[in-house]
Amino acid sequence: MIDTKHLQEFILIVGEENIYSDKAHLIAYSYDATREHFEPDAVVFPRDEEDISKILQYCNEHKIIIVPRGAGTGFTGGALPSSGGIVLALEKHMNKILEIDMKNMVAIVQPGVINIDLQRAVEEVGLFYPPDPASQEYSTIGGNVSENAGGMRAAKYGITKDYVMATRAVLPNGDIIKAGKRTIKDVAGYNISGILIASEGTLAVISEITLKLIPKPKLTKTAMGVFESVSQAMEAVYKTMASGITPVAMEFLDNLTIRAVEQTFHKGLPVEAGALLVTDVDGNLEDDLDYQLQTIQRVFKENGCSEFKIARDDKEAADIWFARRNASPSLSIYGSKKLNEDVTVPRSALPELLEKFYAIADKYKINIPCFGHTGDGNVHTNVMVDGKDPEQVKIAYLAIEEVFQATIDLGGTLSGEHGIGLAKAPYMSMAFTDEEMNLFKSIKKAFDPNNILNPAKMGLD
Amino acid sequence: MIDTKHLQEFILIVGEENIYSDKAHLIAYSYDATREHFEPDAVVFPRDEEDISKILQYCNEHKIIIVPRGAGTGFTGGALPSSGGIVLALEKHMNKILEIDMKNMVAIVQPGVINIDLQRAVEEVGLFYPPDPASQEYSTIGGNVSENAGGMRAAKYGITKDYVMATRAVLPNGDIIKAGKRTIKDVAGYNISGILIASEGTLAVISEITLKLIPKPKLTKTAMGVFESVSQAMEAVYKTMASGITPVAMEFLDNLTIRAVEQTFHKGLPVEAGALLVTDVDGNLEDDLDYQLQTIQRVFKENGCSEFKIARDDKEAADIWFARRNASPSLSIYGSKKLNEDVTVPRSALPELLEKFYAIADKYKINIPCFGHTGDGNVHTNVMVDGKDPEQVKIAYLAIEEVFQATIDLGGTLSGEHGIGLAKAPYMSMAFTDEEMNLFKSIKKAFDPNNILNPAKMGLD
Repeated sequence: MIDTKHLQEFILIVGEENIYSDKAHLIAYSYDATREHFEPDAVVFPRDEEDISKILQYCNEHKIIIVPRGAGTGFTGGALPSSGGIVLALEKHMNKILEIDMKNMVAIVQPGVINIDLQRAVEEVGLFYPPDPASQEYSTIGGNVSENAGGMRAAKYGITKDYVMATRAVLPNGDIIKAGKRTIKDVAGYNISGILIASEGTLAVISEITLKLIPKPKLTKTAMGVFESVSQAMEAVYKTMASGITPVAMEFLDNLTIRAVEQTFHKGLPVEAGALLVTDVDGNLEDDLDYQLQTIQRVFKENGCSEFKIARDDKEAADIWFARRNASPSLSIYGSKKLNEDVTVPRSALPELLEKFYAIADKYKINIPCFGHTGDGNVHTNVMVDGKDPEQVKIAYLAIEEVFQATIDLGGTLSGEHGIGLAKAPYMSMAFTDEEMNLFKSIKKAFDPNNILNPAKMGLD
Repeated sequence: MIDTKHLQEFILIVGEENIYSDKAHLIAYSYDATREHFEPDAVVFPRDEEDISKILQYCNEHKIIIVPRGAGTGFTGGALPSSGGIVLALEKHMNKILEIDMKNMVAIVQPGVINIDLQRAVEEVGLFYPPDPASQEYSTIGGNVSENAGGMRAAKYGITKDYVMATRAVLPNGDIIKAGKRTIKDVAGYNISGILIASEGTLAVISEITLKLIPKPKLTKTAMGVFESVSQAMEAVYKTMASGITPVAMEFLDNLTIRAVEQTFHKGLPVEAGALLVTDVDGNLEDDLDYQLQTIQRVFKENGCSEFKIARDDKEAADIWFARRNASPSLSIYGSKKLNEDVTVPRSALPELLEKFYAIADKYKINIPCFGHTGDGNVHTNVMVDGKDPEQVKIAYLAIEEVFQATIDLGGTLSGEHGIGLAKAPYMSMAFTDEEMNLFKSIKKAFDPNNILNPAKMGLD
């Protein structure tokens, strides 16, 4: 419970209408997409950067924990107040697109802007913001930057960090800083935006973001390949990416995932196939798209693709994408508990990675359906068990540890896009040496000597 | 002078043949491209990462200053031992391309690899490393990363930071760390590579770099536009960049630069023109290149381009590029002392920026010829005076301060690609607040509590 005198102080800063401390609201802000929950002591809605600065300065003086929160769609608990304290909720007031600068092709936004709102606003004027995490309808740009969110289009267009040109941020002591410019080049001073990206709200509260936009390509086409074996499909993935063209997306569903979607939605999917690959290409000229699709078709066919289909219109494209977009919810046929990870390996390691995952599944006699963004080596790995059976849940966690070890052994990372938060904190020592963890802790301390900002995340405490 | 017992210790680590402490060599390692010079106490050539670790550990214990050095081509004194100490020269042994991984399209290199050697090696196998600083024939990848080097192709392909996927580095205490993976996505832990980029050798010694490669486009075409006025040319630049296509390069020469090149090389350049724009486009299809060139021609013509010429072959392309590539040395006709800066503004501010620069030149009755990478808002601004006239030199520094102020007023940065080093350290307070400088100092301290690594750079001391 938070001291009333602190609450009074927050009321003086943001006004009574911008603070919740009643039970119902505390519960509402205790969740994210992990299904874990921790009630905060209060929820505060800053109206602007000045409010954030005053709140942080006060909390720093009084050693009150602050947990910044966007939409709470994270998969790893990054926005959960696991050590109590104040949730600083940015979605209520700080949700404006401040400027779309068409001359310089940048957007300036507050952290609470929803990803899809930004995408739509810039596409209306012929521009393009590529990062499209699966949470795009709900997640905020501030959250996307804090987690360095990826998405379907990362294979060609990269991830959130590739679009952050500048940030404004409030340090734990209340200092307001700006880092970067509305320019592609800026090498004056340390790259503060670079370290804030993916820092999971542990270093500073990002109060404004300047994002690079690019011209919106005029044309997009979708195609699909059916493969008998998953290893052939994985070979086709990295060979396509190295073929001289770069598809926008190169997504994958394995046999278990295909079966789950088919059983749930009855779309006539090839349930005997080892894997499906779904790909998009884009550009400004029909000829260019045809060239890209011909290249993909050739590489696919050389690697065991038994059927290659190019969508002839938007409807056919939507049909092809349906299976991929509905993969995640369909998997519940395999169990009520899902441990879904977003491990990522160098693309050439994908065939071996999948083999290892299926061997882990065999060993524990469980299902591990996989799908995801194979164009950048990112596999959504779903360890499925019966959540009501404690023995099964124990097995799931054993399997996950082996999933991580297999990934690391192949030169991969614990997380391609979801971050570490609470959920993966126990595994940090598998991926990082003591020296590396010590460096992380030194950086944390340089920004936040009192450890008031989102503590106990990323395995730092 | 360094204590003999320290030298003995270094000999034990790297062997006698890998240390210079004689006068001639100390002078040889006292320079970079700034024409400033500071002799080190010794030059040490580590053979590998282990050597670097042992040297740093020893220097940290004994508070001996260490200055990492690549090729010494920097324009801001980043590699100069301005406070004495040891130069740690990486070009002698740590200059290997360790791997070109075609399956994952990455190169793994030691810091002393010359930029052009890497470009050639990857192009031989159909891949492409775009960052091409003007120093590419000499400068090292380690230096490029430490300064976040740009180049001609930044307009389309970005800068060094956009290609760094992972680093290995040695911290001042000797700890060896790795940051990042051979993957596009990796969001586990703080983005250490992100903060090492552009840190000018002040945080750690980078010992290995993993770089993203892309497919080499099959075709490139070059074109040139002649403009009556520089402001129309600058309008054409940002309007082209926002037109829906993205040229590889969009380079500019102003009237004074055109005249200087013509006077030096007699190439028949249009000496009455207000500005020349030189542009490259690339892609895999002729139609695509034609579409891009037509778009550029249209935008150029709409903005006062009196002559537009597309190179018909490599010879004509080289002729067009000749003026741009020889701009810098030609400027000596305007004076023996050149203060050349690499200020960068949002592209839409280019017309106003150039106006301000010429007003500064008028005010001080000096010449400020400008050329550079306008496709990304980066203008090489050359304040030219008679170096033998102390009054003129004083005026040059007054003019430079106004150049920086004009840039900052227009939302720009002190440096687009050269860094801060010693040369721009006095101007840091124009660009950064005390709060921002304090944050930089905290980060420096987190990495290097004893301030042994390249001290007195970036205005931090």
